[in-house]
Amino acid sequence: MNLDLKNLKFDANGLMPAVIQDAHTGAVLMLAYMNQESLEKTIATGLTWFYSRSRQRLWNKGETSGHIQKVREIYFDCDADTLLVKVEQVGVACHEGSYSCFSRKLYVPEQTNLEPAAVSDFTPAVILNELYGVI
Amino acid sequence: MNLDLKNLKFDANGLMPAVIQDAHTGAVLMLAYMNQESLEKTIATGLTWFYSRSRQRLWNKGETSGHIQKVREIYFDCDADTLLVKVEQVGVACHEGSYSCFSRKLYVPEQTNLEPAAVSDFTPAVILNELYGVI
Repeated sequence: MNLDLKNLKFDANGLMPAVIQDAHTGAVLMLAYMNQESLEKTIATGLTWFYSRSRQRLWNKGETSGHIQKVREIYFDCDADTLLVKVEQVGVACHEGSYSCFSRKLYVPEQTNLEPAAVSDFTPAVILNELYGVI
Repeated sequence: MNLDLKNLKFDANGLMPAVIQDAHTGAVLMLAYMNQESLEKTIATGLTWFYSRSRQRLWNKGETSGHIQKVREIYFDCDADTLLVKVEQVGVACHEGSYSCFSRKLYVPEQTNLEPAAVSDFTPAVILNELYGVI
């Protein structure tokens, strides 16, 4: 196990933001906070554990809903103060029932010079479906 | 412009974490902090502006390097306390020269039951390249 936590920089409250990303689709699912104990439990169990700032205790994502997150990879950033956790999401990530917690759009520029369908819209599934229609 | 900032919840320091994601590849590029002023400048200019906690001032990503981020979409999460900003990254996101700030791997499970190449490895470019070899 390639693990070295000593260089990570938790904040004054002992916390670090963790961006949770679907390892398959690349979608950003949620952001939550980890302290060292929750990070160690995440690594020990292979499932995501966070620290709830409101409840002031650890929580295991999906412990009641069953919508657990199986850890695929964990990265840290150049400042060593943020984590990126790539997961296999079981069910949906958001407690409101959405696949991602980022389901509310705040802003889209009025003018874009983009092609009608950007590359990111072509998922492997979409491409293969298109191809089945052609071949 | 579909914009409503009044429901956003900035923290006690007036800040909110912003996850920056490449709109084309889906890669998570960095996490930085915005206050309301930097969010408004981001929206007004179409480029990312953040608040530097160490320098205690606003900064425009790419102002010295030229590696700007053109805003495509901004989302907020179910708690309204985190932003997800999808961008077109010019050059690289990390000041260390990496495409993403999350270039350091902390942990990978010793055992995975995954197929050798996961779905996420098949980008549209990879799929099309494979197909050109077959057709």
